[in-house]
Amino acid sequence: MRVLGVDPGLTRCGVGVVEGVAGRPLTMLGVGVVRTPADAELGQRLVAVEQGIEQWLDEHRPECVAVERVFSQHNVRTVMGTAQASAVAMLCAARRGIPVALHTPSEVKAAVTGSGRADKAQVGAMVTRLLRLDAPPKPADAADALALAICHIWRAPAQNRLQQAVALHATKGRRA
Amino acid sequence: MRVLGVDPGLTRCGVGVVEGVAGRPLTMLGVGVVRTPADAELGQRLVAVEQGIEQWLDEHRPECVAVERVFSQHNVRTVMGTAQASAVAMLCAARRGIPVALHTPSEVKAAVTGSGRADKAQVGAMVTRLLRLDAPPKPADAADALALAICHIWRAPAQNRLQQAVALHATKGRRA
Repeated sequence: MRVLGVDPGLTRCGVGVVEGVAGRPLTMLGVGVVRTPADAELGQRLVAVEQGIEQWLDEHRPECVAVERVFSQHNVRTVMGTAQASAVAMLCAARRGIPVALHTPSEVKAAVTGSGRADKAQVGAMVTRLLRLDAPPKPADAADALALAICHIWRAPAQNRLQQAVALHATKGRRA
Repeated sequence: MRVLGVDPGLTRCGVGVVEGVAGRPLTMLGVGVVRTPADAELGQRLVAVEQGIEQWLDEHRPECVAVERVFSQHNVRTVMGTAQASAVAMLCAARRGIPVALHTPSEVKAAVTGSGRADKAQVGAMVTRLLRLDAPPKPADAADALALAICHIWRAPAQNRLQQAVALHATKGRRA
């Protein structure tokens, strides 16, 4: 499974592509950041995020896009930009028929470090180890995007089993 | 000036097109709602909003798109969807090179009713009167979209004068 992880943001939108399956060593195919100038108009910034995400989708053809689930309770000032950038990333994926998965920051931290309250350094260290990199990817947004992709690869089998069970249950319900 | 007003939302995104200039009677060219099913996946809903907005832009060719400025402090539960729908509307406009203007709910209410704290019924009544309609547009999201467009037409001359003054001042500063 090849997954594009997106840590959404208007100033820096982290992107990372990881390939692999749960239980086997993972491979990083690419990592980077889509940046937009803070002094540009909001509409123009969203267009720049769209162009950046499209390039990553064109180049890596992921089977799934994992985006950080944005909560409105933290940091009221930046959350709107984060929500808007995440909308653009989800839109780009869904337009191509690529499934979009959302994972919360604590799900991502728990997946890669074992603790939902791990700090940035710990996430960066584990991403470096799990992908067998020479150094933690920088900036932190890039490392977070890789952690999202890893989290998705590891969580997806469980989520798929759950969805299949729900679908089966719904089918049985309709038949009854 | 022809303006598309957008009252962003995932379940109901109000859209309304108004033509006119400040100080002259205004004309409504269209009003409606882009709806997306609440049980669809978020990515699919954003694609549906994009398709809806694109249709309105194709049909009416507005010179400006006025979008409600979303604040994160009210109604934490729905604000993320509102922010995401507004991002799609801004993206669609900016991609075509159409200027995007943001107005706060209280600016819009103050523009059409004289009070920034007017209720929905008052806004609906004034939109009906100002556009010489037979009845208030329904749902309220549609009326709010028209109010946004009216607000923009009336505020734009002042905003343009301000921008020109700032630009002139900046030019003088560089010359000095």
